[in-house]
Amino acid sequence: MQEWIPVKINDLFATVVNVFEKLGVPREDGEIIADVLIAADRRGIDSHGVARLKRYVDGIRKGIMKPRTKITIVKETPVSMVVDGGAGMGQVVAYKTMEKCIQKAKENYVCFAAIRNSNHYGIAGYYSMMALNEGLIGISLTNAAPLVIPTNGKDAVLGTNPISVAVPAKEERPFVLDMATSTVPRGKLEVYNRLGKKIPLMWATDERGVPTDDPSRVLNNLLERKGGGLLPLGGAEELTGGHKGYGLALLVDILSGVFSSGAWGTDVYGRKGEPPNVCHFLGAISPEAFVGLEEISSNMDNIIRMLKNAPRAEGKDRIYIHGEKEFEKADERQKTVPLYYKVYENIKDICQELGLEFNL
Amino acid sequence: MQEWIPVKINDLFATVVNVFEKLGVPREDGEIIADVLIAADRRGIDSHGVARLKRYVDGIRKGIMKPRTKITIVKETPVSMVVDGGAGMGQVVAYKTMEKCIQKAKENYVCFAAIRNSNHYGIAGYYSMMALNEGLIGISLTNAAPLVIPTNGKDAVLGTNPISVAVPAKEERPFVLDMATSTVPRGKLEVYNRLGKKIPLMWATDERGVPTDDPSRVLNNLLERKGGGLLPLGGAEELTGGHKGYGLALLVDILSGVFSSGAWGTDVYGRKGEPPNVCHFLGAISPEAFVGLEEISSNMDNIIRMLKNAPRAEGKDRIYIHGEKEFEKADERQKTVPLYYKVYENIKDICQELGLEFNL
Repeated sequence: MQEWIPVKINDLFATVVNVFEKLGVPREDGEIIADVLIAADRRGIDSHGVARLKRYVDGIRKGIMKPRTKITIVKETPVSMVVDGGAGMGQVVAYKTMEKCIQKAKENYVCFAAIRNSNHYGIAGYYSMMALNEGLIGISLTNAAPLVIPTNGKDAVLGTNPISVAVPAKEERPFVLDMATSTVPRGKLEVYNRLGKKIPLMWATDERGVPTDDPSRVLNNLLERKGGGLLPLGGAEELTGGHKGYGLALLVDILSGVFSSGAWGTDVYGRKGEPPNVCHFLGAISPEAFVGLEEISSNMDNIIRMLKNAPRAEGKDRIYIHGEKEFEKADERQKTVPLYYKVYENIKDICQELGLEFNL
Repeated sequence: MQEWIPVKINDLFATVVNVFEKLGVPREDGEIIADVLIAADRRGIDSHGVARLKRYVDGIRKGIMKPRTKITIVKETPVSMVVDGGAGMGQVVAYKTMEKCIQKAKENYVCFAAIRNSNHYGIAGYYSMMALNEGLIGISLTNAAPLVIPTNGKDAVLGTNPISVAVPAKEERPFVLDMATSTVPRGKLEVYNRLGKKIPLMWATDERGVPTDDPSRVLNNLLERKGGGLLPLGGAEELTGGHKGYGLALLVDILSGVFSSGAWGTDVYGRKGEPPNVCHFLGAISPEAFVGLEEISSNMDNIIRMLKNAPRAEGKDRIYIHGEKEFEKADERQKTVPLYYKVYENIKDICQELGLEFNL
């Protein structure tokens, strides 16, 4: 059996929408979710693509994700919103809130939204990049299930809490930072575990809080809540800057969970069988708040070229800008995406269970 | 000779103000600069305190810092500003701009300023913390002289570009993140060099772009522009997350330099003998844009306590919140700060040269 199976994007999109529709998600909402998931596969972030379909299906079945997403604006000012996602689908909550942020930023220069009571929203970068289409700067942060150790801590109490910021350029591709604030996300440990490889000591700690090179031990400990977990960017010690990654993870939790009076830390996914109260923070900024799109996008070309033309270290042939690798991957994957055979089988099973035709 | 000399803060403050006044800095501006510098010493960030007095004195003498700071608001919206610092004193530019941000955020919920043509402004956290006094959230970023390597690069093309965000709590101390986006600032290498100690391989690269444990080699290379430099948070490789620290450093340069049409990358301090065109990005956010100060500050108490009460790793006795160590240091240093004897001698020399009384 081949490990990776190429699948037509159109067919995959239709399949995902059908799955969600069957589970009670309105068709137009299912299209949003499918687009977010497939964008991740196209950009090479397979861990956040349709590989997660099962988790969303299970979430709806368990009742922790409501298929009909009811969004409530709890508070609104000309430049901000507090939003309640009604335990709906994270992608739909974030997409619709970001649309509103963009509209308000066009009118009032900036808009930020703190969102509570949502669910896993896929790749953070999808929503920050929505702003690019309108010539705006986009921001997208989210808290997540506690998997990350604070510096000097033993247990995972913070999420991998990603930060994404997208800034338009003119002739160059836009800058799209989209990074977990842990050194690596859990998916990276799963890959190393599958391959029987040891992990670098910057990645994770064992149940005593000591850095380990054994991915299966870490994954097992996280599953059984035995202690240990992923390390923040910078590793276990202040000496290597671990307190900085921890600070960034905490900042994301503050902006998302604290600013919306949602949940934070161990309270995210804190009660089994109940909606996880995932919180996001989204923002759109008009370049007209500063020197304007014309100047900013041409300045961006300049800084991007300065970096790309800088001298390379021995043995390195290229300096990348953030988002560049993903844009190139998406260019390759315009019509088809490769699915890992287990993911392919998984989608087949879901379709069968739901009585849907499977033709990928 | 003792290594550290305790000095009365009142006397130190007066001395610093006198030095600047003698160099043509208006007294009220000198008081701002003195307060920013001594705040760093009180908070234990000695590298950014009065140890830097000589650099400011030299800057004014060389004409790259204008003693009379003329600030121009180039563009203004209800929620933003583009500011030209007129090559004045960085502390004065940032202090006065932050004051205006705070005032505008009180009226319009948020305000951000992109500032060009400024100078080194001291600790980033001073300005973010100004917002705390008014019950607001503060943001302070700045670009800086190119000392940091982009991932896969050989030469230093980005600054240590710090990020500071301050968020008020209720009974707990506020959260004050204030971090260089490099693993460590240059000052850390200077300390290791003085002590004849090797540095961790996450900190810096040699002139070929290869991680090194030799601090004197790195410092020398930076001075002579031979290549190599400080590594971004996460180290040299993507495997350990180095591209993330690089992305954060780039983000700070974009917000500061690109958004203000100032300077970025190697153009900061790009021409010898000319003003360095340092750029900052400051912001103030009213909690009323979100769930309000009452709820946010009490949520902050909750998240801070959750972290501080989390189980510790083996051999660690305490989990810190960002800013906590510095607040405790400042509590100890209410009347006096310890100055390294070389710094003390240095200030004595400056006073002598300027014909000022020295009585520290």
